[in-house]
Amino acid sequence: MDLEAYLREKREMVEEALQRYLPQEDAIPSQLPKAMRYSVFTGGKRIRPVLMLAACEAVGGDPRKALPFACALEMIHTYSLIHDDLPAMDDDDFRRGFATSHRVFGEAMAILAGDALLTEAFRLMASPEARGELPEGLVLEVIADIAQAAGVTGMVGGQALDVESEGRDVDLETLRWIHHHKTAAMISVAVRTGAKIGGATSEELEALERYGKAIGLAFQVVDDILDVEEEKAATYPRVVGLPEAKREAERLLQEALEALEPLRERSEPLQAIAQFIVERSF
Amino acid sequence: MDLEAYLREKREMVEEALQRYLPQEDAIPSQLPKAMRYSVFTGGKRIRPVLMLAACEAVGGDPRKALPFACALEMIHTYSLIHDDLPAMDDDDFRRGFATSHRVFGEAMAILAGDALLTEAFRLMASPEARGELPEGLVLEVIADIAQAAGVTGMVGGQALDVESEGRDVDLETLRWIHHHKTAAMISVAVRTGAKIGGATSEELEALERYGKAIGLAFQVVDDILDVEEEKAATYPRVVGLPEAKREAERLLQEALEALEPLRERSEPLQAIAQFIVERSF
Repeated sequence: MDLEAYLREKREMVEEALQRYLPQEDAIPSQLPKAMRYSVFTGGKRIRPVLMLAACEAVGGDPRKALPFACALEMIHTYSLIHDDLPAMDDDDFRRGFATSHRVFGEAMAILAGDALLTEAFRLMASPEARGELPEGLVLEVIADIAQAAGVTGMVGGQALDVESEGRDVDLETLRWIHHHKTAAMISVAVRTGAKIGGATSEELEALERYGKAIGLAFQVVDDILDVEEEKAATYPRVVGLPEAKREAERLLQEALEALEPLRERSEPLQAIAQFIVERSF
Repeated sequence: MDLEAYLREKREMVEEALQRYLPQEDAIPSQLPKAMRYSVFTGGKRIRPVLMLAACEAVGGDPRKALPFACALEMIHTYSLIHDDLPAMDDDDFRRGFATSHRVFGEAMAILAGDALLTEAFRLMASPEARGELPEGLVLEVIADIAQAAGVTGMVGGQALDVESEGRDVDLETLRWIHHHKTAAMISVAVRTGAKIGGATSEELEALERYGKAIGLAFQVVDDILDVEEEKAATYPRVVGLPEAKREAERLLQEALEALEPLRERSEPLQAIAQFIVERSF
């Protein structure tokens, strides 16, 4: 299959929908919408939304039904990057070659832009437009899944322990906990909710949850490998060594591909995305 | 009626429920849940959740059905205070006599505690526990209403323009816009969603929306009057003068009381709360 073409098509769907769903720059007499759009539209590989659409398709669903939720996930991801980059956190001036939000709009506006993106993500998911013809109970379940993956027992919790671990020696168990929460939770929830929206059977859901967990962890391990120069952070290669980190990424890729077997050809894009994540410069 | 006793009873309901709904301190191996609980449980008049419960009762509903949503509203309010107090925003060391979150837990953890409270609020509202026997479509509508009141076209938008207006001369129109979004939106949505959860008729809903808008604005005007020493902020008394600010608060109170007329005796707590807001040291 032509992964490039597949990714391009899905990314375009996401970009176009984000343009529609984000507040227009003149929505209110403030720079806030401009700051929100700036961070959403400076780069971004859209991995999470594309995974959600691909998981929806892999179980025979219409990806357009998942699109508002995919965009909400990308808004949540973007808010987390804006807040991570703040001076009190990682203090980064650039991301993907662009000045970070607080460098362009000031720290107060960057904090508010993150807050607003997080809030708008939930507004969008609960809106009649997102609901469409989906059962209302399913929409609530998807919102709860995503909130859990983004919250205390997910991304924010992982980020908190990561901040607390900075400059300390971290054991493998702690590192796995941070990865699992900070990064893997949002990636695996993309796959899980995409499958649910697509109408997955319980066997399909189980397979895709296994796939999502494996690629979620693989994603962070590979990120760490690409980031070996990163001095202060707790990373996989620093804790287990580079060769073992690479073996771990390979093991997780095999686990992800195995999980997809019951889904056969329909899961080809998900197979290709898993390979891409591990062998990337994705 | 005995407003003191009414408020005490409702506040106790809210406190007890917040204790249950917030993550326990040992939920994850991080200080994050402790930081979240610290800000929620240091003071707080619980005006928004109490208004939601009172609006629910005013239309004959069971306030326990509104309780999870009332707690979610208080979590959102608390997150906004944590972020407002940050050095990059108002840079406040104390709130209600307690050290602010970033003074106790550091700036990074305070940002994350706010993020986590906002996320948990939506997780709670979408959870089966909150849903109970409410129609799922109604739950989605309430989530969307609250997200809208908290987001770009509500609280965060108002806060953004407030930040941008700091140190500038602000006209009455701008000031009203800030008040309407930064403060009134969250207060009026408490009343509106409480009424909806209580099963309001369209006449009742209309009356309570009028009430909610009036007390939402009154709340901020009174806050400004109590804050006359505040130097840098754009306040009502600074723009229109103290006597006119007091007349405006009185006009809004009359508007709120008039709006309640169709609801008769059942709206007594709402009448008393409106009076309390305007004549407070609430």
